[in-house]
This record gives sequence, C-alpha cells and structure tokens, in this order.
Amino acid sequence: MSLKGNALIGQSGGPTIVINGSLVGAIEAAEKHSEIDRFFGAEHGLTGVLNERLFDLFREDDEVIRQMRYTPSAGLGTCRLKPKEEDLLRCMEVFKAHNIRYFFYNGGNDSQLTCHMISELAKNSDWEMRVIGIPKTIDNDLVITDNCPGFGSAARYAAWAVQAAARDALAFGNVEVLEVMGRHAGWLTGSTQCGRQEDWMAPHLVYLPEVTVDPDKFLADCKSCYDDYGYLVVAVSEGFKFGESEQATTSEKLDEFGHARLGGVAEALGNMIEEAIGVRARFDTLGNLQRAFSPCMSKVDADEAFAVGQDAVNRAVAGETDVMVTIKRTSNDPFEFECETTSLMSVADKTKLVPDEWINADKNGVTQEFVDYCTPLLSESAFELPPGLPVYPVFQKHFVEPKLGKYVRSK
Amino acid sequence: MSLKGNALIGQSGGPTIVINGSLVGAIEAAEKHSEIDRFFGAEHGLTGVLNERLFDLFREDDEVIRQMRYTPSAGLGTCRLKPKEEDLLRCMEVFKAHNIRYFFYNGGNDSQLTCHMISELAKNSDWEMRVIGIPKTIDNDLVITDNCPGFGSAARYAAWAVQAAARDALAFGNVEVLEVMGRHAGWLTGSTQCGRQEDWMAPHLVYLPEVTVDPDKFLADCKSCYDDYGYLVVAVSEGFKFGESEQATTSEKLDEFGHARLGGVAEALGNMIEEAIGVRARFDTLGNLQRAFSPCMSKVDADEAFAVGQDAVNRAVAGETDVMVTIKRTSNDPFEFECETTSLMSVADKTKLVPDEWINADKNGVTQEFVDYCTPLLSESAFELPPGLPVYPVFQKHFVEPKLGKYVRSK
Repeated sequence: MSLKGNALIGQSGGPTIVINGSLVGAIEAAEKHSEIDRFFGAEHGLTGVLNERLFDLFREDDEVIRQMRYTPSAGLGTCRLKPKEEDLLRCMEVFKAHNIRYFFYNGGNDSQLTCHMISELAKNSDWEMRVIGIPKTIDNDLVITDNCPGFGSAARYAAWAVQAAARDALAFGNVEVLEVMGRHAGWLTGSTQCGRQEDWMAPHLVYLPEVTVDPDKFLADCKSCYDDYGYLVVAVSEGFKFGESEQATTSEKLDEFGHARLGGVAEALGNMIEEAIGVRARFDTLGNLQRAFSPCMSKVDADEAFAVGQDAVNRAVAGETDVMVTIKRTSNDPFEFECETTSLMSVADKTKLVPDEWINADKNGVTQEFVDYCTPLLSESAFELPPGLPVYPVFQKHFVEPKLGKYVRSK
Repeated sequence: MSLKGNALIGQSGGPTIVINGSLVGAIEAAEKHSEIDRFFGAEHGLTGVLNERLFDLFREDDEVIRQMRYTPSAGLGTCRLKPKEEDLLRCMEVFKAHNIRYFFYNGGNDSQLTCHMISELAKNSDWEMRVIGIPKTIDNDLVITDNCPGFGSAARYAAWAVQAAARDALAFGNVEVLEVMGRHAGWLTGSTQCGRQEDWMAPHLVYLPEVTVDPDKFLADCKSCYDDYGYLVVAVSEGFKFGESEQATTSEKLDEFGHARLGGVAEALGNMIEEAIGVRARFDTLGNLQRAFSPCMSKVDADEAFAVGQDAVNRAVAGETDVMVTIKRTSNDPFEFECETTSLMSVADKTKLVPDEWINADKNGVTQEFVDYCTPLLSESAFELPPGLPVYPVFQKHFVEPKLGKYVRSK
C-alpha cells in the first residue's frame, strides 16, 4: 500500500475564513509521513497546476505556517475553473512531470467533481495517485457531511452582522433588509436566526431561497412585525424569489460558470417595504466579508477545517483515494465530531438544500431544529483579537522549475 | 452657581459603536452630584422631548448600565430632526414642566446647532438651564476637537473590512472596490490606509470626497496598480466624484435633511474598472455596520466616549453652559487626551474636511501625517469577544407621567 512521491494541494472557489486551517492541517500531517517527499501548493488552484505554478510548502517558514492557520481567505490563491478535457490531460502531464502521487483539492461540489475526474483519468492513465477532496464552502451545501468547514465562521459573521444592523434599525425605529450569500441553499441566511435574543427581537423575518414568496403575504408580514415591535429587520438570501421566476433584480452579467451574478435583492425589497408601510428602509449586503472577516472566526469551524486537512493526508497515505472527507457530529452539546469519508461521486455536483421540515410553516423563518443544528457551529470564537490591525503572513513561494512547455488554453 | 433640578440627555443622528459609552459616562457622573435629582433619557432624541417620552435613568438596573457602556448603537433611541421654531418652544414647555435644569445632547454638527438654539431660547425665556453638547460622529467632521468619539471604532471597522475584502481580491487576483461612509469629509475612507501592511498591499488607491477625480487618471492608476501587484483594492468615499458635479450614481431620494441619499459608487466604479482593464471587479459597501459592529470597538474611542459624557455632566454642574466638550490630544504615543470645551456656535453646522496637505500629490491616497494621526485612534481593541453571540442589554424605561397635551407637529 505504501506509495512514495510528491504531494500537491490546491484551494478552489470562494475562500472562507478558515480555509487555510485545512491547508495547515494538511501540511502538518504531511510532514509526519516519509512517503511524501515534497509537498507543493498550487498557486490559484487548478490554474496553477495547468501553468506549473507549484511551490514547495515544506520550505516555508514555520512561523508563517503557524500564522496562516488563522488567516482568512485562500493563502495559496484560488480560482474558479471548470476544467475541460484538455485541461485534465494537461494536469496528468504535470502530475507525471513532478511525480505527484497525492492530490488534494479543497473546495465545494464543483471541485469534488473535478477531483473525481482527475482520479478517473489517473486510473485510466495507469498513474498511481491518491486523490482526496477536502470540503469547503460557506454555503454549507455539500451533501452527506454534517456541515462544511467555512460555514460556521460565515454564519457567525452573518448572525452578528444582522444583530449589529438591527441595533441601528431599533435605534431609529426603521426597517432594515440584509442580503446574505446563498443562491440555492439558505443555510447561511437561516443561521442569522441564531442571533435572535428574544421573541420580539431581530431578525423578525428570514427568507431562504428554498421558498417562493407571495408578495402580498410578504408585505403583510413586514407590516405586522413593524406594527408589533416598532422596528423591522429582514434577512434574505441573495437567491430570494417571488413566485416561480428568478427575482427581477438579478444582474445580467454571468459568472465563470454561466450563472447570473446575484445582488440587489435587499435594495429592491427595502424600497418595496418603504413604499408599502411608509417607514424609511435601509439595506445592507453582507458581501465578501462573509468569507473573510476574521474577528468572526468560529472555534468549531476552525477546528473542523484543520481536522479535515489533516485527515485527508493521513487517509491518502494509508491508501484511500477517490473520496471526500466528511464531518460526522457525534455530540451536540458539547459539540464533538469525527472525520469520515464518502465517495467523490456521492457529493460531486450535488447541492444540499435546507429540508422543508426545518423551514417554518409561514415560510418566513427556520425552526428550532435548524437553530439547534447551527448554534454550536457558530457560537464560540476562535480568535484572539490582535492589539492593532491584523498582520497577514505571506508565503515566500519557492517555485519548482517548470518541466513542460507553456500551456495555452483553447477558448 | 449651584443649580438644583432634573437633567435630560438625548442621542441624535447616526449611532456609533461607542455612543452608549458617553451615555453611561454621563449617568455615572450625574449619580455623584446632589444637584441632579432625576436624570431622564429622551426616547429617540428630540422627538422624545417633544412627545414627553422621558424615562428615568437612575431607576435602570446597574447591570444593564454596566453592559450598555460597551453596547453599540443609541440605547436611548435616536432621531434625525431639524427642529422648527415651534419645536423649540415646545421643548421649553417640556423642560419647564419637568424642571429640566441640565440638557445634554449627543450628536454631530446639526445637533450642536440644535443645542445652541435651545440654549438661546432658555436664556430668552428666563429659564435657567445649562446646555452642553457631547460630540459624536463616525465621520470625524466636527471642527476644533482633535477627533470625534465614534470615529476611532468606525475607522477600525473600515480598515479591517478593507483588509478582509483585500484578502479575497488577492486570492483571486481580482479587483475590489469598497464604499466607505463620508459625504463631504474623507476621514473614514482615509483611515483605511492605516491597514496597509506593506507598500504593495491594499488598499492601493484611496479616494476622499475632498478631491475631484479625473476619470482617465483614475483608470490609469487602477491599471498601473493592477499590473504591478496582480490585484487591486480601491477604497472610495460614498461622496466620490469625477469632475465638479456630484457623481451620477447618487440616489434620487432625499433624506430627512433634504440631502440626496448616497450609494452605488463602488458598484459603478467596479463596472468601469472591469470594462477598462478586463479583470473581474467586485464591490462591497461597508454600510450600517460601520457604526454598529462591536467586534471592532476601539479602546481609545471607547475611553474618549465615556470621558466626554462624564465631563459634560461635571462641567454643567460646575456652571458651564452653551459649550461642546472637545478632545485635546496631549500625547500621541502612548495616546493620551484631555477634555476641553468650545462654544456651541464655534462647531455648529461646520464641517472639518481633511486638509489638503494630508492628501497625497496624486490625490489617490493620504499622507503619512494622516496615518500617524489616525493610527492610535483605531489600533487597540476595547472588546472582549463574548463566548456566544452578543447579548444586548435592554432599558426597562420607567417613563415619567406626561404633563402636557399631545404634541402635533405641523407639516
């Protein structure tokens, strides 16, 4: 079973506050295995593989590695790349040229599919290589795993941000609408309800993309809450929709995967509420800080991220391949978990939505079961506030000598 | 000089992260003076005075007061009200009905003008009352005082948020544009430069509303930074403008003072940069969290807020009136300050802009003097991260019995 050679790790898709925890977990595990000669980081994920932008992680400074564990956002650089057949063939050439026998890719369901395709191609090319996916997404939308590293910290940020903006709305007696990331899955938006301190407090209404909302019911609910509490805070997913069609405020631009870029929901709803109930409505879009604002790093999330990185390397060296590491919750209070695995194909390209039974009957909030599920993931802080502003570590990046010609991707 | 009676305090305008520090400073000082019988909080500032919505702060629970000191956003409630003559006359009736001999109003330059008008009217009505303005604004745009309580924490948030979003841009090799509060004064936007860790790091370009920007130079600077550093982070004030006219993205709606509501600058500039340099540009608007996100409370700011509240009460009891408390910086490192006063008319309705000599020659950043001025205000954290999500104290609000008829404001 022993397989000796080099290892390669890449980070993919949207960063998270704890993604570098997985990287450091993997590095620390790899250092303990004599089977791994050199451990390369791919600059900007698969893009770095294609262009042979690989640097030696074992040569990085120990202090940088130590700090990186608690540094938000992909330290290796990330990418959004849906590989074509020619890209996968190029990856194989790169793996062979640099004797890569272990490949780790840290990402969401798109990335797990990429992992599986690479695993298949290696098998078909008679290149013995172990391929393990490491889960990561703030959206918490990977199937099978109890939760996804990256989610707990994003949820902690979202819940706290809603509470903060709610203080502003309460002070004025205003309306506030907050837009939370989540195109299809409402885990992050639902998690904001964990911050509701008393029944009368914000967030009063929480709309997940899993539900379709009736405009009249929506405005009636807004009016009723405002009349009852003297202020109103509404949390909505960016994928919020009235009726069956995508809501009208979606941007016409497309992202790298051909999806419409989202945005503008909170503003549109704020204007609609202001007009209907005659109270000034403000709005905020939580935006990129959901995946990068380190004061909201969650301890459970940081621990999970580190564990899945470590576990991926240990399992690969022990012989596992074509799997993604998963989290199994073994105790809720105190929260405890174990790492397990599932086949890459069981998670690839699948999306875990919030189940119907965790959405309330009025479709304007989540149930207590949802709150109980989320609360341990976002409660405890992992972060020691620095005395000044954060100082981020920087990799020195000792790049390997390229062994292949320049790669030009066809359009 | 001794004046015995009741005292009244109100919070006005946009809240800040530390505004309740001033409230608690005032309450704790008032408790020590036998001249002050009862100390009322006005619910929602001047609106509460007009409607006799006054509650007894001495009857609030000690633990609530203790927690309130570090709770963001106006705990009494706030308002944006530009008083008309009839409003001021009504205020005088309320003061007389409830034997208010001390009036404290915590706000920006609009509120200091209100204070002065009330002070004048009291004099002309032969009502002996001491009126002291307590400074507050995240914009830092009050003249004479070294800085404004509220600014340091907002600046800490803005600088940290820019650093966080910059991590995301760096990880992708993208462009990020961040919109910071500030219609006329660029203190908050400029403060984001305090987070620049190395010369090549974000924020690369910082645009204050004090400058008018040439579109061609703007795009050339963006392109040059992106080419040099492989990513680009731009911080802009919401009052950003090309040429002499207000920029085109300003909302057509008006706020309570008849100013155009701002917003949309970051998005417009992001689109413009994306088109010009062909790299994906994202944008974030820091929004209401700039004045409410407690993890970024600054220690110096919290200390200042508490001190000005305390000082206002002590000075009023000692006989001062028609003044605003100011901050005098007595040492920069370690940062030390003293409270002084200035006449209300010297600050009322005036705006302190960033001086020309603190803006760099290229008009796309601030000078080292600016950074040295801001750094101590935002460096140290005042906040102990709570184990879970924040739990906010709530005033019990023992309201006084109204003594006047209902007030109906003319349109």
